[in-house]
Amino acid sequence: MHVIVDLCVVPLGVGVSVSRYVAACQEILETAGLKTALHAYGTNIEGEYDDVFAAIRRCHEQIHEMGAPRITTTIKMGSRTDRQQKMEDKIRSVEEKRKG
Amino acid sequence: MHVIVDLCVVPLGVGVSVSRYVAACQEILETAGLKTALHAYGTNIEGEYDDVFAAIRRCHEQIHEMGAPRITTTIKMGSRTDRQQKMEDKIRSVEEKRKG
Amino acid sequence: MHVIVDLCVVPLGVGVSVSRYVAACQEILETAGLKTALHAYGTNIEGEYDDVFAAIRRCHEQIHEMGAPRITTTIKMGSRTDRQQKMEDKIRSVEEKRKG
Amino acid sequence: MHVIVDLCVVPLGVGVSVSRYVAACQEILETAGLKTALHAYGTNIEGEYDDVFAAIRRCHEQIHEMGAPRITTTIKMGSRTDRQQKMEDKIRSVEEKRKG
Repeated sequence: MHVIVDLCVVPLGVGVSVSRYVAACQEILETAGLKTALHAYGTNIEGEYDDVFAAIRRCHEQIHEMGAPRITTTIKMGSRTDRQQKMEDKIRSVEEKRKG
Repeated sequence: MHVIVDLCVVPLGVGVSVSRYVAACQEILETAGLKTALHAYGTNIEGEYDDVFAAIRRCHEQIHEMGAPRITTTIKMGSRTDRQQKMEDKIRSVEEKRKG
Repeated sequence: MHVIVDLCVVPLGVGVSVSRYVAACQEILETAGLKTALHAYGTNIEGEYDDVFAAIRRCHEQIHEMGAPRITTTIKMGSRTDRQQKMEDKIRSVEEKRKG
Repeated sequence: MHVIVDLCVVPLGVGVSVSRYVAACQEILETAGLKTALHAYGTNIEGEYDDVFAAIRRCHEQIHEMGAPRITTTIKMGSRTDRQQKMEDKIRSVEEKRKG
């Protein structure tokens, strides 16, 4: 199952700055060979369900190892069987409607 | 990794009524032996990460099989290494603060 | 516009225990006359859009006043024009499909 | 209260293609003078709380007027009192940690 995911991890108990932990996640996602795009409130990820959620698990293990005792995460996930859709297709589709 | 999850699946392309699909998910989650609690905007789930996300995958496969060509899902997930916490502990903890 | 909302506030920079802040939010939501139901990963709220989001604003102001320098919040919101639907209707609708 | 928001609107009962509705939202957010950045699973928005949530309300009214009988929306929102932070600061902060 091919999925497009939006991942936002929030470590708790480590102060207000969380960018160090997000950077470690980015590293893990890219090492896993997943397509990613960072935005101001999370990371878009594209790949096979099992690969994506194995990598998200490693992100959480890594953040705990870096010292965060608690993590709260928000994930959006889209899957479709009618056609293949890539992350850039979704953006292009909205932009075309605006020009139209 | 023990997690508490909040799952909200939204099938697209099948009209406005989605309860039939949510009911099928509940069935899958319970058959997987996961602890669940249905609320008005999703389902709380408690279990091991791999078990929870294997069941969530089956939910999506099932909803597609039932005829939904597209699904968009929102997931919240909490993990902690400082102590074990159950779903009912989280609710009790808030209620105690209110009485206090 | 009548809405059903799921609210999950996460104060950052105040350690791992957040129940005190969630309890303060519950107080504000109830004082605002909104219907609420607490679950293990947030609070369901039902009411008019303007009332709900005025109360959510007060929740954030209160949490900052209690000492949290940063808050990250996840909100789900449903609105519909085809028919009135209450929080308990959504749950009943799923439960009926399971018996059916 | 200055906020950074991530908005993802999902119209139900109008088939699988939702880009037309997302494009209409983009128009409303920009007309409201809000800073926005579209990504593959939503739109980042930056502005004052009252302005942002007035615009989000108009988005929902517009989507209903365009014919969607039901909408389910996911919103993430961040506020902080320790310092001003812009959308681009959040991205830069992660990127700097990766180089470091």
